[in-house]
Amino acid sequence: MHGAMDQSDLLALPRIEHAHVAFDDGLTLDCGTALRHLTIAYRTYGSLNPERSNAILVCHALTGDQYVAERHPLTGKPGWWEMVVGPGRPIDTDRFFVICSNVLGGCMGSSGPQTPRDDTQQTPPPRWGTDFPPVTVRDMVRAQKRLIDHLGVRRLFAVVGGSLGGMQVLEWAANYPECVFAAVPIATAAHHSAQNIAFNEVGRQAIFADPDWLGGRYWEHGRVPARGLAVARMVAHITYLSEQALTRKFGRRLRGTPVPAPFDDIFEVESYLRHQGSSFVQRFDPASYLTITRATDWFDLAAEYGGDLAAAFRGTRTRFCVISFSSDWLYPTAESRGIARALNRAAANASFVEIASDKGHDAFLLDEPDFHRTLTGFLAGCAEHAGLPR
Amino acid sequence: MHGAMDQSDLLALPRIEHAHVAFDDGLTLDCGTALRHLTIAYRTYGSLNPERSNAILVCHALTGDQYVAERHPLTGKPGWWEMVVGPGRPIDTDRFFVICSNVLGGCMGSSGPQTPRDDTQQTPPPRWGTDFPPVTVRDMVRAQKRLIDHLGVRRLFAVVGGSLGGMQVLEWAANYPECVFAAVPIATAAHHSAQNIAFNEVGRQAIFADPDWLGGRYWEHGRVPARGLAVARMVAHITYLSEQALTRKFGRRLRGTPVPAPFDDIFEVESYLRHQGSSFVQRFDPASYLTITRATDWFDLAAEYGGDLAAAFRGTRTRFCVISFSSDWLYPTAESRGIARALNRAAANASFVEIASDKGHDAFLLDEPDFHRTLTGFLAGCAEHAGLPR
Repeated sequence: MHGAMDQSDLLALPRIEHAHVAFDDGLTLDCGTALRHLTIAYRTYGSLNPERSNAILVCHALTGDQYVAERHPLTGKPGWWEMVVGPGRPIDTDRFFVICSNVLGGCMGSSGPQTPRDDTQQTPPPRWGTDFPPVTVRDMVRAQKRLIDHLGVRRLFAVVGGSLGGMQVLEWAANYPECVFAAVPIATAAHHSAQNIAFNEVGRQAIFADPDWLGGRYWEHGRVPARGLAVARMVAHITYLSEQALTRKFGRRLRGTPVPAPFDDIFEVESYLRHQGSSFVQRFDPASYLTITRATDWFDLAAEYGGDLAAAFRGTRTRFCVISFSSDWLYPTAESRGIARALNRAAANASFVEIASDKGHDAFLLDEPDFHRTLTGFLAGCAEHAGLPR
Repeated sequence: MHGAMDQSDLLALPRIEHAHVAFDDGLTLDCGTALRHLTIAYRTYGSLNPERSNAILVCHALTGDQYVAERHPLTGKPGWWEMVVGPGRPIDTDRFFVICSNVLGGCMGSSGPQTPRDDTQQTPPPRWGTDFPPVTVRDMVRAQKRLIDHLGVRRLFAVVGGSLGGMQVLEWAANYPECVFAAVPIATAAHHSAQNIAFNEVGRQAIFADPDWLGGRYWEHGRVPARGLAVARMVAHITYLSEQALTRKFGRRLRGTPVPAPFDDIFEVESYLRHQGSSFVQRFDPASYLTITRATDWFDLAAEYGGDLAAAFRGTRTRFCVISFSSDWLYPTAESRGIARALNRAAANASFVEIASDKGHDAFLLDEPDFHRTLTGFLAGCAEHAGLPR
């Protein structure tokens, strides 16, 4: 009752064979743990030109995946960035070779809680589950670098991403400046704020409070803390939308009940949130959610460079376009402005654009013509400067 | 593990005898249900003058109570508004007779989920629990009116309250204009926004997801969905604070662990939130939380007056001072401005003050000298106008 989910639907995510590459030399993580095997699941769109100069790496956000511009294999829905990536789109697949990989710690084929552990003699090896070691955004980027090397791309024409994807863009530019011609961090920040951490912590506590969490051993018992994960998704989803967007979409519209029943979803916004929660658990693993939210909390690029964000970019030849949205209160414009100021202090080639939008953080995923024009223009200018064949 | 709470501590709130008055003629609620018995628990401070003209009703917020200016009987902490109510304070108990009652639906002695049901032949009658009927803010105010009549006060010198307390102030002014000389709605709104409803819904879903919710029958089994209630409190608490206040108090300070452990509280802000959650469940009942959050969601004063907020105040002689705080994003200044505009349209005697503060919604409970000066000044001016003896 009260929107309960049927546990039997949720025992585990369906096993899908995702296109991937496996690296038998593994990867040593920031936490000190060495993964013996590294698997990176990825998709590409368009063709790599003979000069290998037209590759764009797209970095996905917290609950995104590598299915940027094609039907999602679990949900059947269109790719999450089809408005931006595709033929004739701002990231034009007729011109660019687009790569997107599932982040390290994710649940769509890359090494993470859903993949078999590599530190045991058991056959077959069990899945990592919540024993998967903690990862950082820098670890995610190190794993992507292995993929890029594997694909024979020495220098990326651009790295582009929003939210957690934007954090990866910043790590790419800081760690591999010679490999990044252009960088577009969108709706992001150079570190997680106390409020960001607090919202993530609420989501984690909701998962821990679920009876099917089982002290973190849920996957060993064929259970999934789905209701807790749904609550985590609900609170996160509120932070993705602006107050104005929620008011425009739902306001105080009722579903028809004329009394203030305490337990039913009497307002449309409640039904919407319940739906967001219950559909999310069909496609996401709680341990991945914990791993990735923790990576974002941990992210603090300046701290990796002695407390000075400018030091992360000193001497860079990468061209930057920092983009924020005016109604984004999860990663407000002030955070992007801080990134732009650090780039200025580092004498980097950087522009900064705040897009006027009332759609909140999610604007980077939605139909925002000004944003799309900005991205198109920046990439075109960079392509000309790079002498990229048309 | 992971900050679990010991269920044995939490079976039920301690039974305390709160000072109260019982009305055997009951109260008919907006939902149509007639409570046969109405109990209102309340506290008073200061003395009613012979003219009975110096009474101020203080209305408490969602998780507040009647212990405004004295030690809380469960937590042992000071009263929740001792900075504002007391001798020499803005609401000066040397001059005013202050009344505060636990809201209808609360869990500190007034009729609510913790009180015995009155619709059964069972002896002793069981508690209402989640069968307690839904209440509205107007119902809360109707119950307070009964208390005021009982105390022999025909006209309140002032009604003052923040947040849900401010909603009660507005209902008082709209429903009993002749009984309210002055009204001070603080950090509030004339209706709940979609975002407000959404955050409340997350809290409700966290409670429903708790294994001890037991389909809403928890109290019959001596259980309490304490972890869910704690999560609800955590998410609500974030909305009470500004991003700046969280950054100033905690920033990204660590508790000492040098690795991004996914499950432990490694940031100070996490420990703080966990503490907020676990201490709250020692003093609050989940069914009351559901009942009262639903009352706030349901609140829409204009809707009670044909969609025109000004109609709620037409012809009023009450003097208003509407107060907001600049960094309050739960009930932003724009909401208070809307109230002030409606009062203007109704030709009411109204002033509107936005207090500059970076403390967020909670500012009305904190040390904000500008706010306290504003309140002191407004009450002094009204007292002079009313000819109140010094």
